[in-house]
Parts: sequence; C-alpha cells; structure tokens
Amino acid sequence: MKTPPPIERLVAELRRLPGIGEKSATRLAFFLLAAPERAVRALADAILRVKLEIILCERCFDLTDASPCPICKDERRDAALLCVVEEPADRAAVERSGAWRGHYFVLGGALSPIDGIGPEDLRIAELEARVRGGAVREVALATNPNAEGDATAHYLAERLRDCGARLTRIAYGMPMGGDLEYADQVTIGRSLQNRSELS
Amino acid sequence: MKTPPPIERLVAELRRLPGIGEKSATRLAFFLLAAPERAVRALADAILRVKLEIILCERCFDLTDASPCPICKDERRDAALLCVVEEPADRAAVERSGAWRGHYFVLGGALSPIDGIGPEDLRIAELEARVRGGAVREVALATNPNAEGDATAHYLAERLRDCGARLTRIAYGMPMGGDLEYADQVTIGRSLQNRSELS
Repeated sequence: MKTPPPIERLVAELRRLPGIGEKSATRLAFFLLAAPERAVRALADAILRVKLEIILCERCFDLTDASPCPICKDERRDAALLCVVEEPADRAAVERSGAWRGHYFVLGGALSPIDGIGPEDLRIAELEARVRGGAVREVALATNPNAEGDATAHYLAERLRDCGARLTRIAYGMPMGGDLEYADQVTIGRSLQNRSELS
Repeated sequence: MKTPPPIERLVAELRRLPGIGEKSATRLAFFLLAAPERAVRALADAILRVKLEIILCERCFDLTDASPCPICKDERRDAALLCVVEEPADRAAVERSGAWRGHYFVLGGALSPIDGIGPEDLRIAELEARVRGGAVREVALATNPNAEGDATAHYLAERLRDCGARLTRIAYGMPMGGDLEYADQVTIGRSLQNRSELS
C-alpha cells in the first residue's frame, strides 16, 4: 500500500539532504506531520528566507546578509593576516575555534582534476589580486587536510611565491581524509597555532 | 563573530528536528545555501503541503490524503484482522514488512503514567467500539516492544478480554527498548508471523 503522495513527496525532498537516508527522511516527515503548524511554517520560512537574504561578501566571498561582512568590517581584526578556506562552512568552523584573529578568504572549493575543477573554477584570481594588492603579511592556507586541499594549498603557494607575504599551511592535528567542517574546535585551533612555513 | 541571522535562524529551526544536532543543522543549512533555489523551494513547499493535505483516516486514524484511507478501502484486505500500532510511522513500518494483509488501527501513542498519558489520551474508546462493533476476528497488538508498549498491550487485552476476538501480541524478534519505526523489514515480518495468544 502506497504512502499518501504529499508524504512521499516530502520524504523524497528530505532524502536529497546530505546524510539523510530513507529512514531518517521518513522519521523527519512523520515528526513534521505531528508538529504544530506554526513550527512547521517557521521551518519552511527559515529555509526560504536564507536563500533570499544571504549574499556573498564582496571582500572574502563568505556568506553574509550585508556586504562587506561583519568580519571584513571589524577593525579589531588584523587585515594583514588572511586565512584561506574552501567553503563558508570551513570559515565558520575555523571561527568557532577562536584561534584566528585575522581575515578570511573563501576559495569556493578545492582543485580536483577528477571532478574537472581547475584553478579557473575557484576564486584564485580574486585571491591573487587581494594578496598582491599589498597589505597582506601572511596567507594561512587552511584548505582541507585531504588530497584536494593539499594540492590546492601547494598550487596557491607556488602561484603566490613572489607576492611578499608569508605562506603558511595549517598543521596536521587531524586525521588525513578529514573535513574541517566536522572537526572539533580544539583540533582546529591546534592546527592553526602550529601552522608551518610552506617550502 | 556571529553567523548572519538568517543562517542562524535556519540552524535553530533545523535543530528542532529529531536526531539533528548543532553540527548536522549547520551542515544542512550550508547545503541549502549552496543548493539551487528551485530545489530549496521544492523542499519548503513539500513541508508546507504535507501539513495542508494530510488528514486522519476516519476508520484507522492513520495519516492519509483521502478518508477512508486506501488500506481501509482495499477490499482485498481482510477487515476481520486488525493490527493495532502506536503511531503512523509504526503502521508504515509494519506495512513495509509485507507480513500483514489485514487492517490497521493507530492508537496515537502508548500508556505512560510518567508522562501523564492515560487510556483517555489514546484512541482506546474508538478501538473498543470498532472491535465490539463485530466483524473483527483478531486484534494483533503491535505496540512497541518496550515497557510502555507492553503495558498498553496488556491493558488493551484486559479491556477487550470478552469482545470475542482473538487477542495476539507480536513476537519479540527485536531487542527490548527498540522502536518499530527503525526496525528492519525482516525482523518486523518475523515478529508478526510469530505473534502469540495473549493470556
């Protein structure tokens, strides 16, 4: 016997979310069915508004509701220190660690020849312009500690070699193959503190 | 530095969902931010529509988009066999097992003195009316295999003792403390096949 189409449609939509399989999606759908209508409307509204209200910061390309974003506008932070991350979620994870008092730059991903992602698919030209524009003393490469993130860090180090800024790479405090987004704050903080010169 | 309010609001709403913690909610929020607007609208729409279009079946109290529901209207199913479950998600789980060709009755929960849930908070009067209305040959009590579900099954057996129908209880094929909603199909099927007379 088939599930009613509106429930089936919701389960199908929920299954598109990362980490949500058939059982989780079904469980979430039944939870929403049992929840008060006001709460369900609030969720749907929050989902829609986030798409309408969030834009990219013109300086760091992080997600924000006002550009430049609060971090880029914060005068207590050192604009000469630039932490390069792959994605907004990584920026948020680094920020939660409390170990970085500089600015950020969101690349938009990592180099991945297998997936057809080359330098022109990331914001590398924008990063280069920012760094070569002067006033950057250190570029801390905090791409993820996996094959793509490492390759991206080395590519950036090569490309920025003569820019005059220190080029550093976050230390491995995390297991290889990991993802910054899911690491705990202490590990992220330690790997930033132990960042080393990129040869 | 704070996350932009629209993202924070979405993370807060997602955290209300069962099994979604801080990290999962953040991950889902960033996924939605990166997803095409069309896909995000489809999800929000599915969430809203399910609340608008789903009602309770007047016979079995399962969730449906048309009452009586397709199972209650299905003439190939044996209306003399009634499987009593706590929640719609449990009904869906039993149905997926393919082991039940009768009808269902959704109680709306289980007895739980600690949570202040007594017989009058469940659809026990409605169940009794249905069973005593005749034409029911067996009541298979498929409340969850935990303390509350067991207590509910025994309470129902007591209350329906003289109704003339066979009263059975699903077999324990699952570990105690489990929940029908998350059990695999084979286990649910076996426990229905091995259902036993309730003394």
